[in-house]
Amino acid sequence: MAFYKKKYDIIVVGAGHAGCEAALAAARMGTSVLLLAIDLDKLAAMPCSPSIGGMAKGQLVKEIDALGGEMAKVTDKTAISYNILNTKKGPAVHSSRTQNDKMRYHMAMKASVEKQSGLDLKQGMVERLVIENGHIAGVEDRTGFGYSARAVILATGTFLSGLVHIGFKSIKSGRAGEFASYGLPAHLKELGFTLGRMKTGTPPRLHKDSIDFSQFVPQEPMAKPAPFSFFTEKISMPQVPSYMGHTNEKSRKIVLDNLKHSALYGGMIKGVSARYCPSFEDKVVKFPERLRHHVILEHEGLDTDEIYASGLGNSLPVEVQVEFVRSVKGLEHAEIMRPGYAIEYDYINPLQLKPTLETKRLPGLFLAGQINGTSGYEEAGAQGMWAGINAACQIQKRPPFILDRSQAYMGVMIDDLVTKGTKEPYRMFTSRAEYRLMLREDNADLRLMSMGHDLGLIDKHILQDVNDRKQQIKNEIKRIKKTIIKPVPLVNQYLESRNTTPIDNGVSLDQILKRAEMDYSDVEFLAPAPEPVSLKIVRQVVIETKYEGYIQRQIREIEKFKNLENVKIPEDFDYTKVNGLSNELCEKLSSIRPASLGQSSRIDGMTPSAIAVIMIGIKAARKS
Amino acid sequence: MAFYKKKYDIIVVGAGHAGCEAALAAARMGTSVLLLAIDLDKLAAMPCSPSIGGMAKGQLVKEIDALGGEMAKVTDKTAISYNILNTKKGPAVHSSRTQNDKMRYHMAMKASVEKQSGLDLKQGMVERLVIENGHIAGVEDRTGFGYSARAVILATGTFLSGLVHIGFKSIKSGRAGEFASYGLPAHLKELGFTLGRMKTGTPPRLHKDSIDFSQFVPQEPMAKPAPFSFFTEKISMPQVPSYMGHTNEKSRKIVLDNLKHSALYGGMIKGVSARYCPSFEDKVVKFPERLRHHVILEHEGLDTDEIYASGLGNSLPVEVQVEFVRSVKGLEHAEIMRPGYAIEYDYINPLQLKPTLETKRLPGLFLAGQINGTSGYEEAGAQGMWAGINAACQIQKRPPFILDRSQAYMGVMIDDLVTKGTKEPYRMFTSRAEYRLMLREDNADLRLMSMGHDLGLIDKHILQDVNDRKQQIKNEIKRIKKTIIKPVPLVNQYLESRNTTPIDNGVSLDQILKRAEMDYSDVEFLAPAPEPVSLKIVRQVVIETKYEGYIQRQIREIEKFKNLENVKIPEDFDYTKVNGLSNELCEKLSSIRPASLGQSSRIDGMTPSAIAVIMIGIKAARKS
Ligand SMILES: Cc1cc2nc3c(=O)[nH]c(=O)nc-3n(C[C@H](O)[C@H](O)[C@H](O)COP(=O)(O)OP(=O)(O)OC[C@H]3O[C@@H](n4cnc5c(N)ncnc54)[C@H](O)[C@@H]3O)c2cc1C
Ligand SMILES: Cc1cc2nc3c(=O)[nH]c(=O)nc-3n(C[C@H](O)[C@H](O)[C@H](O)COP(=O)(O)OP(=O)(O)OC[C@H]3O[C@@H](n4cnc5c(N)ncnc54)[C@H](O)[C@@H]3O)c2cc1C
Repeated sequence: MAFYKKKYDIIVVGAGHAGCEAALAAARMGTSVLLLAIDLDKLAAMPCSPSIGGMAKGQLVKEIDALGGEMAKVTDKTAISYNILNTKKGPAVHSSRTQNDKMRYHMAMKASVEKQSGLDLKQGMVERLVIENGHIAGVEDRTGFGYSARAVILATGTFLSGLVHIGFKSIKSGRAGEFASYGLPAHLKELGFTLGRMKTGTPPRLHKDSIDFSQFVPQEPMAKPAPFSFFTEKISMPQVPSYMGHTNEKSRKIVLDNLKHSALYGGMIKGVSARYCPSFEDKVVKFPERLRHHVILEHEGLDTDEIYASGLGNSLPVEVQVEFVRSVKGLEHAEIMRPGYAIEYDYINPLQLKPTLETKRLPGLFLAGQINGTSGYEEAGAQGMWAGINAACQIQKRPPFILDRSQAYMGVMIDDLVTKGTKEPYRMFTSRAEYRLMLREDNADLRLMSMGHDLGLIDKHILQDVNDRKQQIKNEIKRIKKTIIKPVPLVNQYLESRNTTPIDNGVSLDQILKRAEMDYSDVEFLAPAPEPVSLKIVRQVVIETKYEGYIQRQIREIEKFKNLENVKIPEDFDYTKVNGLSNELCEKLSSIRPASLGQSSRIDGMTPSAIAVIMIGIKAARKS
Repeated sequence: MAFYKKKYDIIVVGAGHAGCEAALAAARMGTSVLLLAIDLDKLAAMPCSPSIGGMAKGQLVKEIDALGGEMAKVTDKTAISYNILNTKKGPAVHSSRTQNDKMRYHMAMKASVEKQSGLDLKQGMVERLVIENGHIAGVEDRTGFGYSARAVILATGTFLSGLVHIGFKSIKSGRAGEFASYGLPAHLKELGFTLGRMKTGTPPRLHKDSIDFSQFVPQEPMAKPAPFSFFTEKISMPQVPSYMGHTNEKSRKIVLDNLKHSALYGGMIKGVSARYCPSFEDKVVKFPERLRHHVILEHEGLDTDEIYASGLGNSLPVEVQVEFVRSVKGLEHAEIMRPGYAIEYDYINPLQLKPTLETKRLPGLFLAGQINGTSGYEEAGAQGMWAGINAACQIQKRPPFILDRSQAYMGVMIDDLVTKGTKEPYRMFTSRAEYRLMLREDNADLRLMSMGHDLGLIDKHILQDVNDRKQQIKNEIKRIKKTIIKPVPLVNQYLESRNTTPIDNGVSLDQILKRAEMDYSDVEFLAPAPEPVSLKIVRQVVIETKYEGYIQRQIREIEKFKNLENVKIPEDFDYTKVNGLSNELCEKLSSIRPASLGQSSRIDGMTPSAIAVIMIGIKAARKS
């Protein structure tokens, strides 16, 4: 086999949301990187919803951004609608979401990748891995050409043994219109990896002019969009609304009547689909009591008339899709430009991974994105960044980069994946993050930028700014804690005018700010800071003050959590030598190989007494 | 089989350069049209050179434009470099050429198609035709869904049984990264069509930053670009240069040494390739005396760093491509982003077509573009327009729309195709057009817009403007013919100052303009028109005056040509009844079924005496 003369440090296979972040992060850390994809015209494609962010996903994107990743930046260059979800709830669960111009998103991400020095982007389909002395050594493309590297990241998305379904017609395809990869999954099986099968799907795309929008309720974008990225200064894309409508009993009946013709219920599909993102077939079967479901129409881009019809995902034959779509009020004359479809693909159960996303079986091989059984652009992007950083750390002989569950949503996701594995497409939820009050979108920069800087991904002057801000927040909190407001008439008059109880004794300013009806303007009135305080600082001061009690409790919980987390388990620890472990747990532990006592405690079926005996085992092992 | 309820007049299969023009023309003429393509994200894709126009091709584009087509308009929206070729030769062969931003070309054409009323654009791969009572009745896609129509235009490009070759690796593919269509060609064979095999290819794409441009000579775009389309008022895209370099003996040697590994010379490829557009393998084999060949580097777009390396087309294994590319001065460190490749595909020999591009075998089925054995975006676009118009004329029971060889390059091309067929990829050349002095880019509007208007493709006010201009040209020519310049000293002093012979007697102004060294500014000096004459008018007046002799001769030739052209041969004419025809010619004529005596005279192997006996036969048939 012929090899490319240039030897790379890292090869990333796949230029989807995972692959692009992986390649960019690794190259920016100074390793030499090759990024391969089957079709360069589909780099960072969005095969489903034209949107970035959303609940818990917004947090992931902010974290990627705070570590020096690309997703939020490209989002700001191409977003045509901004929203913040959950604003009626606490700041912990505020999540940013944008709609994006798909084609421009692709073009902007491709430009970022092309402009990155130390990163080569090439078109090619990988069929096999090259292995030398039990370590990864490169990849071979389907023309039989080889590329050498010391680490490889597979970020192949839904392409492994991809099979698209429309009714009873199945087409080998990695996404509609794209080649699937059949050589690579076969090779991975040969290498001993366990592959599973999953399923996802997408709704039809409709032509704008065939829709009666008067039957839908426009959802206006935020009037003053706040950039997604911490680095964006100005948003210059025009903003457009989306449109909300709903299905009805007729829609339900059409799908029920045709269930046997759907790929999903007709027996064509064996892959496991996500419960939280059901196709319409699933909705009518699993929620029989719900007679109507939301339909949201979103623009696929500024230059195209294609409309994404969220909520109408299905794997029905085209003729039924037409009938079904047209049952919706306002869509009576809708022209389908691309039919919806389901897709089945192979994934690799992430129990086969270390917390770095390196495979346990093959040193130097990392997996990131949908290949790990996740779903979603943001989940993919976060894993890509993680794998890219860790592959680079490995090359540069730096310690692995691991965020724990108290540090980032990313840490929660990776810990979930490598500890519990997944049998259905895994997506991020705020409820998965125990310490979500600490893991807010608004403090992702404060939490993570210094680590991004340590990795070489965040500029010095940015770090300086973050540190300055941290100091200012501290100072201002200190000041309002120290500042005592006296019960003079002027103060009490003011408090009354603000519909809050007057004070009888001197009260510290922070106590007043804690009151639900108070905000920072009241602080400014009662005792302004000597220097004006910027909005970014104010936001943090307010949250830390108002939620102080919860935050303190969470900090104590995190300390306890860290106690277990800090008890590391040696990689070669022998569980068979631990007295009092059940055979089942012993096998599980030997295969998952948790990195810490904390991680082992989260393995399914783990018991407190098992943790206790492992702890004893570890101590014994340390002594000997 | 389930059918879409809506019945279309016309279905166009394929949204390449042919299909888009076909669909737009037919919809604009008022028929209801469905346009189907395998991947909507690749609509009007440019799989090879990112350019529109060029010698003889520029003429085709201007003709498409004058008839109300789209190509030139989209070109102006997306061109990043304009040039006029052959400006040192006569105006007959001046040809416009642009470089275009590929992705934007796609996006702009897709937007035009989406915005066209009466035209539905849908993603779908056609596998079979639906036939009723011997007439086309629709198509069936690969999910088994049917669409009805009264006419179908196949514009499937290189996709029929497409096979991509890189070295000895062959991949079923319609273009790199796109699915080929295997069902449809098999079905066409079943229906009795004769399919042939052709080959084309494309060079590798290189990363801009890996090129040493100092080793290339920049080719600046025109400083004041003249719009391609008659309808464009302003060009607003930034303009960029291209870069000229050349291969050397080392390049030659690498390719010669590896010839046996190339798909083309290693025996992988059976399809016939175009002589005039050789791959590099062909160049070194067929022109052994040429030690160097041009390499031209062109930007693929403004947002991407991909560079098209014209002149380096090959089907060698990737490792050899790397070595070969890097042998070029300035490309020593070039990174290939997409390797070059060859592609083989089925075509339908166009002898099976009528001059309308309708197939003889299956009424209502039209073929346009590369499926007919042509090559080139412009040739495809022109055929698409032609087929779209004729399908609409058929639906609307209007007479067929046929331009003859004296009216348009389009007419030349179609006549060549349906009269002589083609065994190698057919492309347009100025030399193919006998009457090229009449078929200029600059008069395409004057030649064709009134026909475009008759078809309903050109607005009334545009036609009015063309007619006004025609009148002004006539008037001004008449004026300068009538205006006599007297040999007064002032005149002769002026003529001498302009380095031209003074006059002794009164001379008409047009005679002075005919002098090679004279131009319209001299006319303006010597005897200005009463009203200012616009540049467009001036251009025509100058050409018609300077080339008057040639033009008159060509007009006489055209009259003779029309004599034969006007002798129509009935569709069911029985050649076996013609006395004195050789068996071979009789068979040929019976299969080609020329529409006129003129067309029959251009069939390969035709003799003057055969024409004479056919003429007698036609007269006899008419009498009986
Ligand atoms: C039809 C469909 C519907 C979806 N619906 C949803 C949804 O509703 N909600 C949601 O959150 N997510 C959805 N997704 C998932 C979402 O698209 C993915 O989670 C996300 O894109 C995964 O990113 P990734 O980077 O892992 O892989 P992808 O974005 O799939 O990218 C994979 C990359 O790998 C390349 N590649 C694959 N194999 C090879 C190979 N052998 N050699 C070289 N390159 C290779 C491809 O060319 C591509 O560049 C859907 C996906 C599909 C296809
Ligand atoms: C690798 C390569 C190199 C080339 N090099 C040159 C060159 O150097 N010079 C030159 O002049 N020309 C070149 N060409 C040719 C040029 O691309 C074509 O002449 C031109 O694009 C043909 O236009 P078309 O409209 O006929 O078909 P295409 O542009 O090929 O479009 C075909 C369309 O048909 C659709 N389609 C195909 N089959 C089906 C089906 N069964 N159902 C539904 N849709 C279908 C496709 O999706 C696509 O939309 C090259 C082409 C290729 C692929």
